[in-house]
Amino acid sequence: MFFQSIKYCSNCGKNVVFSLIEGEDRKRYYCENCKTVHYTNPKLVVGALVYFEDKILLCKRAIEPRKGFWNLPAGYLEDGESAEIGAKREVWEEAGAAVNIEGILAVYNLPQANQVYIHFYGNLVNGIYSNGVESIETRLFEVKDIPWNEMAFSSSTFAINKFLENKKLGINQSHLGCFPEV
Amino acid sequence: MFFQSIKYCSNCGKNVVFSLIEGEDRKRYYCENCKTVHYTNPKLVVGALVYFEDKILLCKRAIEPRKGFWNLPAGYLEDGESAEIGAKREVWEEAGAAVNIEGILAVYNLPQANQVYIHFYGNLVNGIYSNGVESIETRLFEVKDIPWNEMAFSSSTFAINKFLENKKLGINQSHLGCFPEV
Repeated sequence: MFFQSIKYCSNCGKNVVFSLIEGEDRKRYYCENCKTVHYTNPKLVVGALVYFEDKILLCKRAIEPRKGFWNLPAGYLEDGESAEIGAKREVWEEAGAAVNIEGILAVYNLPQANQVYIHFYGNLVNGIYSNGVESIETRLFEVKDIPWNEMAFSSSTFAINKFLENKKLGINQSHLGCFPEV
Repeated sequence: MFFQSIKYCSNCGKNVVFSLIEGEDRKRYYCENCKTVHYTNPKLVVGALVYFEDKILLCKRAIEPRKGFWNLPAGYLEDGESAEIGAKREVWEEAGAAVNIEGILAVYNLPQANQVYIHFYGNLVNGIYSNGVESIETRLFEVKDIPWNEMAFSSSTFAINKFLENKKLGINQSHLGCFPEV
């Protein structure tokens, strides 16, 4: 279930309705008892393409969904974090690595999953990495060895492709993507 | 209140605890009755710097917070939207205008407000705009007339400054900002 469903009010515990209420242009979860509107919104996923020399750091997922498939380190942004801090935390947790963030690589939308990815790019500090707790394996891949057919999510495939395009052109462009394409 | 507080379970209506539970690396809202973890996350705000010839489109806010101050059209991303679609909707709602999105201008973080902004940039279609329902006034400003001291939020000031920097340099760079700066 990607879209949040709300049955009871988190503020007073009474039943919530899903209806068109005054001042709103679309249906909202609303508590008629304490008059609270419960807004629901897409979640932000933050991650990084971490490179070292000519190699790219990928993690093999130890958890579902897509366990056993390769991915750029990424995960949900937590309360109180900036996107950059969240991406650094994910790189640490999933790849046991520190990254120097250099810029924004991609904003990639999955509206049907109610997610927006922000992928940064940056270099791997001192070339050091290990297996994070959420990874079976972490590895630096030469471009020719990238396991394109074993990637976990289209967000990573998109980000890696755009990174390689940038590199070929010698630019640092940020890219906007969506699945399905619109 | 920027950070969400959860007292009752939205799934079963029973009391929720805020504690360190198994498999989580930080305190979570948790229902001991139905075993639901209630994750809370920052919200994504999407908007656009809309230009026409050498002018920039600003809206004077008709609603709190910062009613009466100028802003780039922006607002919370809604369920099921891509960031780009959400930004176009906000431009329509606040400025009665259509925008051709050309790229990502800025990712701007307000961790203390639990918000991440994505500002796009793009040109105003046919130069047509009006006052959206959430605006007192909408106006195209020459750069020399931008009301810097009457801006609603630092996110807009940041985005406009970066757009002007890009223009001066003849580039389309995406920028990363944070308030407070880190």
